[in-house]
Amino acid sequence: MKNENELEMARHSLAHVLAKALVSLYPSAKLTIGPAVDNGFYYDIDLDKNITPDDFSAIEKKMKEIINKGEDFKKVVVSREEALKLFKGNEYKTEIIKELPEGEEVSIYYTGDDFFDLCRGPHVDSCRRLQNYAYKIASINGAYWRGNEKNKMLQRVYVYAFPDKKQLNDYVVMMEEAKKRDHNKLGRELGYFTTVDYIGQGLPILLPKGARVIQLLQRFVEDEEQKRGWLLTKTPFMAKSDLYKISGHWDHYKDGMFVLGDENKDKEVYALRPMTCPFQYQAYLNKARSYRDLPLRYNETSTLFRNEASGEMHGLIRVRQFTISEGHLMCTPEQLEGEFKNCLDLAIFMLKTVGLYEDASYRFSQWDPKDRSKYIGTEEQWNEAQSAMEKILKDLNVPYVVGVGEAAFYGPKLDIQIKNVFGKEDTLITIQIDQMLAEKFGMEYTDKDGQKKNPYIIHRTSIGCYERTLAYLIEKYAGAMPLWLAPEQVRVLALTDRNVDYAYEVAKELKAAGLRVEVDDRNEKIGYKIREASNEKVPYMLILGDEETNNKLVSYRGRKNQNVTGVSLEEFKSKLLSEVESKYNGLSENA
Amino acid sequence: MKNENELEMARHSLAHVLAKALVSLYPSAKLTIGPAVDNGFYYDIDLDKNITPDDFSAIEKKMKEIINKGEDFKKVVVSREEALKLFKGNEYKTEIIKELPEGEEVSIYYTGDDFFDLCRGPHVDSCRRLQNYAYKIASINGAYWRGNEKNKMLQRVYVYAFPDKKQLNDYVVMMEEAKKRDHNKLGRELGYFTTVDYIGQGLPILLPKGARVIQLLQRFVEDEEQKRGWLLTKTPFMAKSDLYKISGHWDHYKDGMFVLGDENKDKEVYALRPMTCPFQYQAYLNKARSYRDLPLRYNETSTLFRNEASGEMHGLIRVRQFTISEGHLMCTPEQLEGEFKNCLDLAIFMLKTVGLYEDASYRFSQWDPKDRSKYIGTEEQWNEAQSAMEKILKDLNVPYVVGVGEAAFYGPKLDIQIKNVFGKEDTLITIQIDQMLAEKFGMEYTDKDGQKKNPYIIHRTSIGCYERTLAYLIEKYAGAMPLWLAPEQVRVLALTDRNVDYAYEVAKELKAAGLRVEVDDRNEKIGYKIREASNEKVPYMLILGDEETNNKLVSYRGRKNQNVTGVSLEEFKSKLLSEVESKYNGLSENA
Repeated sequence: MKNENELEMARHSLAHVLAKALVSLYPSAKLTIGPAVDNGFYYDIDLDKNITPDDFSAIEKKMKEIINKGEDFKKVVVSREEALKLFKGNEYKTEIIKELPEGEEVSIYYTGDDFFDLCRGPHVDSCRRLQNYAYKIASINGAYWRGNEKNKMLQRVYVYAFPDKKQLNDYVVMMEEAKKRDHNKLGRELGYFTTVDYIGQGLPILLPKGARVIQLLQRFVEDEEQKRGWLLTKTPFMAKSDLYKISGHWDHYKDGMFVLGDENKDKEVYALRPMTCPFQYQAYLNKARSYRDLPLRYNETSTLFRNEASGEMHGLIRVRQFTISEGHLMCTPEQLEGEFKNCLDLAIFMLKTVGLYEDASYRFSQWDPKDRSKYIGTEEQWNEAQSAMEKILKDLNVPYVVGVGEAAFYGPKLDIQIKNVFGKEDTLITIQIDQMLAEKFGMEYTDKDGQKKNPYIIHRTSIGCYERTLAYLIEKYAGAMPLWLAPEQVRVLALTDRNVDYAYEVAKELKAAGLRVEVDDRNEKIGYKIREASNEKVPYMLILGDEETNNKLVSYRGRKNQNVTGVSLEEFKSKLLSEVESKYNGLSENA
Repeated sequence: MKNENELEMARHSLAHVLAKALVSLYPSAKLTIGPAVDNGFYYDIDLDKNITPDDFSAIEKKMKEIINKGEDFKKVVVSREEALKLFKGNEYKTEIIKELPEGEEVSIYYTGDDFFDLCRGPHVDSCRRLQNYAYKIASINGAYWRGNEKNKMLQRVYVYAFPDKKQLNDYVVMMEEAKKRDHNKLGRELGYFTTVDYIGQGLPILLPKGARVIQLLQRFVEDEEQKRGWLLTKTPFMAKSDLYKISGHWDHYKDGMFVLGDENKDKEVYALRPMTCPFQYQAYLNKARSYRDLPLRYNETSTLFRNEASGEMHGLIRVRQFTISEGHLMCTPEQLEGEFKNCLDLAIFMLKTVGLYEDASYRFSQWDPKDRSKYIGTEEQWNEAQSAMEKILKDLNVPYVVGVGEAAFYGPKLDIQIKNVFGKEDTLITIQIDQMLAEKFGMEYTDKDGQKKNPYIIHRTSIGCYERTLAYLIEKYAGAMPLWLAPEQVRVLALTDRNVDYAYEVAKELKAAGLRVEVDDRNEKIGYKIREASNEKVPYMLILGDEETNNKLVSYRGRKNQNVTGVSLEEFKSKLLSEVESKYNGLSENA
């Protein structure tokens, strides 16, 4: 914890050094705010001249000079009036000062005698403490004052900063690598998806490659769920507000929903569903149930809609419409732990199969008792459900962190978190315990004692959102999907025109075996064709010349630079089919 | 044609006979309208007393008496004023008379001397012509005056009527059979689907059985399409109005769409998609295209939303949200005929496989040049597209009828029509030619001559709407799905407790082979278990007693009363797997 604070303090102190450097280089620059962030710091300034990457080295040099002087950081407490006088002419600082709560101390920090900035601190005591730090301007971007597009656009100088050169270099290398893997760039380049302005933000179009991977994942998940006793449902994507009023979504989630119609005007208002629960419950409610029917497990490849704010969209990871492997399981209290464990087993099986298991962490998302309006149910109910989950997680040795205020409005969750290449964490899979909604929907079972009781409900996903999974897979494998998921598994390259017929013959036989094969019969140089297939991350290329054509053999090249010549088609086919069958994801070589 | 007119005239004359009978039995009855319909006629009356089925025989008897008198139908032309006087006190007839266009002849028809009704005619000349007709009151129902729920509820006496007893009897038997097969009844009873008031009309919930059949159909369709060179896409279900303005849906289809937001208030208005076309075009637009890329075939298992009026909903056949095998194919003019033929081949292959081929008829849906506002494009473009389609249909010998005014707003269609059990026809599959939308979306390809050209687009479904297909299959097979589509293929019944372990062992082996198997291990009489499995139309029951358990054999019962005892599990499994593999639908025995 101490190190964390020190690092943050150093970064924020470096932001002051940057500010001093900028004012020294550009005296007309107006300073606004300059916070420390996860990987360094930034400063937003109002300046007529556009700073460009050509200016970065001069700015970095000036920062170096300031640090080398070894000047002290000195805090001076001033009155509100003095502060307003000191920052006269800077409307941003003036605005900040005026908004400071009554009674709050106002302070400025000097860096040397010739520069000060409005600041609450704390800072390192002297620039000498910053001399080992390594920093590098990462980018210059536009940023609206206070993030509001109605305000003036400022210039944000964004700087990476770390305790030493090695850490900075490691981080820069990681970011370069991350940019190459970024699904939002690579996924578009490789033709997995696109977006279109006139359709809208957060509504990606899955092109044939992306749609194929999702189809394969969906079938795999549905089949595995079926094997494990889940019953498939297919329920509507919208309902009257009446349904959401029963479930509580109308009171607790309406802002996140797409509503059709106007409550104040229309007799019937519909809304697109943000979750599957109240729809899938209808399958349970379709019959009278007894304890002998439990556990009853329903799964669905379900499409959901969430009205996310425009600023939050990101590629395939944060979208407004997505498809998810959602399920609900109704059980008795005695069955709860075993069934929860089964759900977790299933999720882990999925993560291992696709190769994301090592990247997962676990969050036990609890309610926030201080923010009661966000939740339904009584304190007793929450304590009961959370205790049940805590016991289960401890029994299963799940290494979790606690997220207070991250629960669903109806119960606690175990969230399985994944980070994207840039380190941003999102939930991929969730398993939740709910002892409230069954009562709201009148879901009952007749127990052994003849009494009607409400079942416990486990809400769970088994691989989570398919779009998001695809994004993580693109990033994990840098676009080189495991063979079983690769949209195109084999490309057959004819060396000359003489080999085209044989190329199609080979392709036909591989396709008949269920493999996804394309033929490149273009009149292009073989080197060009190989480069293209390689850039497109096709797992295997077959290169067929006269030797192969005449002897009915194949020569192939694997994505990991395997080069094998003159094997029988049968041998090649068996090799591929067994690789597909095993769902081998090659992580030990790839990671 | 003559017979058709005669039948209609007779039915309408019988409606007057019914009216005379009703007035004679219930002098306070006010007559409103009494048209002929497809299977007879009805008369809507305003009467304080509620007519019940107990009254039917008296009404039928009175009709018989009137017909036996052999009275003539006599037309008398009257002035508007005389008509108003004659029907004074009957607000319905008064309303009709007042709405008659200026200058139109007003006539009444006498049946005998003591009864007349306002009527345009024509009628048979005498009741003697009705003496061979057979009729039977089918139902008494409420019906709003003029179909408007703001008006008074009248009583509709609905009568089946046919030229002779045999035809009537055949029809009645057919209707009894139809009611048994009606998917809207049977599909609910067998647990294929349900609906829930608080979710909404036209939004069915597919229960595990229905969801499983649709999953199997979808996979089958997607796989077949993939084999035939279609590339899967997965595109969003909503878009900004901007997209629909380009496509023309905003101008020509907005009333049928679910709109999110208010055009007059919100900056951005979204709408749920009623068709996939403008979304799937984005895949084409993602790259520059040349003639070498064509034909380019995109398929999608696509969910669509149509804001149908509440009165039009019907089970799984007419719904507000549905999933459809939709595709768009971009091609050159030279490729059009061949590709159209491929699309038709695919549709016919699908219909044959599921067993609906014999029930299909073909409609060539053309524009209505008199109603130009419904369509985009010029008369020349329409003539060109329709001529192209006409030529193709003639070349392919498709036996079509013409539907004027049934085209899409952008082009002509070949609609493959299916009737439900009650004889109501709907479109299941459609193949359309469109030479307009590519231009609107700027979809181009570089032709051999280096020129940029717009491709032709074929819009097509290959099996159409999955919900509708499921409905027709339930009706066709009276719920007894072909083995490859049956949600539960085998039920294993243990004869006694001693046989339960073996039952599970057998089930496990069958499941491992990919079959869908349930075990009935309840402590119930075997007769009861068999009856239940039979009512649920499970294709095969395995009945396992001590004989089977001790010798590791199975005895089975098929849905068509096959009874086979003591075969090896291996033999039974092979039999089933080959039946699944062949997609045998048993129509020759079933139909």
